Amino acid sequence: MKFEVLILGNSSATPIYDRHPTAQVVNFNEQLFLIDCGEGTQMQLHRYGIKSNKISRIFISHLHGDHYLGLVGLLSSMNLNGRKSELHLHGPAPLMDIVSLQLKHSDTTLRYNLQFYPTNPEIEEVIMTSPMLTVRSFPLAHRVPTTGFRFDEGKRSASLISEKIAGLNIPTVFLQQLKKGIDCDGLDGVKYRASELTRPAPASRSYAYCSDTRAFARYMEAIQGVDLLYHETTFEHDLLGRAVETLHSTSLEAAQVAVQVGAKHLLMGHYSARYKDLEPLLNEAKTIFEESELSFEGNWYKV
Amino acid sequence: MKFEVLILGNSSATPIYDRHPTAQVVNFNEQLFLIDCGEGTQMQLHRYGIKSNKISRIFISHLHGDHYLGLVGLLSSMNLNGRKSELHLHGPAPLMDIVSLQLKHSDTTLRYNLQFYPTNPEIEEVIMTSPMLTVRSFPLAHRVPTTGFRFDEGKRSASLISEKIAGLNIPTVFLQQLKKGIDCDGLDGVKYRASELTRPAPASRSYAYCSDTRAFARYMEAIQGVDLLYHETTFEHDLLGRAVETLHSTSLEAAQVAVQVGAKHLLMGHYSARYKDLEPLLNEAKTIFEESELSFEGNWYKV
Repeated sequence: MKFEVLILGNSSATPIYDRHPTAQVVNFNEQLFLIDCGEGTQMQLHRYGIKSNKISRIFISHLHGDHYLGLVGLLSSMNLNGRKSELHLHGPAPLMDIVSLQLKHSDTTLRYNLQFYPTNPEIEEVIMTSPMLTVRSFPLAHRVPTTGFRFDEGKRSASLISEKIAGLNIPTVFLQQLKKGIDCDGLDGVKYRASELTRPAPASRSYAYCSDTRAFARYMEAIQGVDLLYHETTFEHDLLGRAVETLHSTSLEAAQVAVQVGAKHLLMGHYSARYKDLEPLLNEAKTIFEESELSFEGNWYKV
Repeated sequence: MKFEVLILGNSSATPIYDRHPTAQVVNFNEQLFLIDCGEGTQMQLHRYGIKSNKISRIFISHLHGDHYLGLVGLLSSMNLNGRKSELHLHGPAPLMDIVSLQLKHSDTTLRYNLQFYPTNPEIEEVIMTSPMLTVRSFPLAHRVPTTGFRFDEGKRSASLISEKIAGLNIPTVFLQQLKKGIDCDGLDGVKYRASELTRPAPASRSYAYCSDTRAFARYMEAIQGVDLLYHETTFEHDLLGRAVETLHSTSLEAAQVAVQVGAKHLLMGHYSARYKDLEPLLNEAKTIFEESELSFEGNWYKV
């Protein structure tokens, strides 16, 4: 089952070097979610072949322009392109005022249903759940109310061991039970044991998004044990003072967070405009955490 | 003296085929003005080598997203890039509410002075004037309050005929007078006649911007005799019904407007996403007005 992240933008504050403001697409089993929506996101979606009308849900972390100024344009274009299906929008409470004011003055009535869910920047909470996937928001530490988002895959099924199943003529309903780890009794008295007939279910995967934020103890619990951690790395550590002042993180700090929470991989982004060459940021992270990787626009990253 | 227009975007409604939402730069004697500011304008300025902090004045025609959604991002980036000089913004009254709400929620205080001048979509009026240049706004006919803008160069100076001036030892103060067409009497009784010593002043140039609008009698007076007319040509004339419905113009209608007002040249733009090939729009306009030209992004057009 697909669980991947496409980077549409990873520039901090101002676009530069053909790096765009923050936006990314999560593809979970062909459900498309958008996290943040900086200016130009609709063009970036087009550039990388994502049909915006396939996006079902948008998550906005905070109201700094480089994280949401592409939203009203995207909502309007979805409308012009004939979107009919409901769109779910999660973000800080004032976001809906901003969207409504702009739609009002452009005399636009969306022909699709836009459902808005305000996030709470004070607490960790489940904001959407299904058997397949649970999404939580949690507080980050930035200059305006900001949340991160964590995506946890539901329990995955075990797979049947076909060599052992072959010839047993097990009823289909039993096969479904076995995949869930449940033993079954046949009418003829035969016992089918899940532990013998299946391979263990693969571990459920998880993805967390932390941008923008100071590296900060408070959200460590919320991203514990995550498989792929996207964490902002705005500065090199020699600019720690600037990171403290602007409530951003250094590359070294992001790597420390990854180690502390036991993340499997760190995906870096939100690069300051001062870095044309990003390798020094990567090298710095790797001194702490080898499984660090620079995010690049247009690339998909597996969770 | 330079008087040119750079097209940054000429796509209608949704960006497509690497055509961007509406924005253009007017360079008048190295003063830079921005007309409209669709999403991505700051990236387009960067792409075409325009330093945004050199823009002194921004004119927004109306509050449809494809004409202004790049504004807050541009204002924020100017701030981040250390702008100190005052910026003047002309546009519909609610624009300032929209800008203020977004700056408030991003906790941004601009470090430069942003002066806002609401436009009046009901009347033609001078919105800025100097000896060199006068700018007027005038009502267009669109679905929301919309104005066009007209830029009129001030009276230009005559040029001295150097062969005739040579050896006459005319005082500098007289030369300035002669260039303005004023005759001068020397202390020695010599008469210096402007008509003999100067070539006539070249005609003052003018540029008008009409987007978005139905082709409509009401604004004809305001754009009378303009040298370069940028007029939207959203559709071919076979889609007149659609143009009427959406309050846009066809290519044929824009050419008719150009003829009726005695414009010297027509610059076409705001192309519907249905036209990948723009030649049919041009051919249609040329059946009425030979001096029609398609605008292309990245090109400068002389007024």
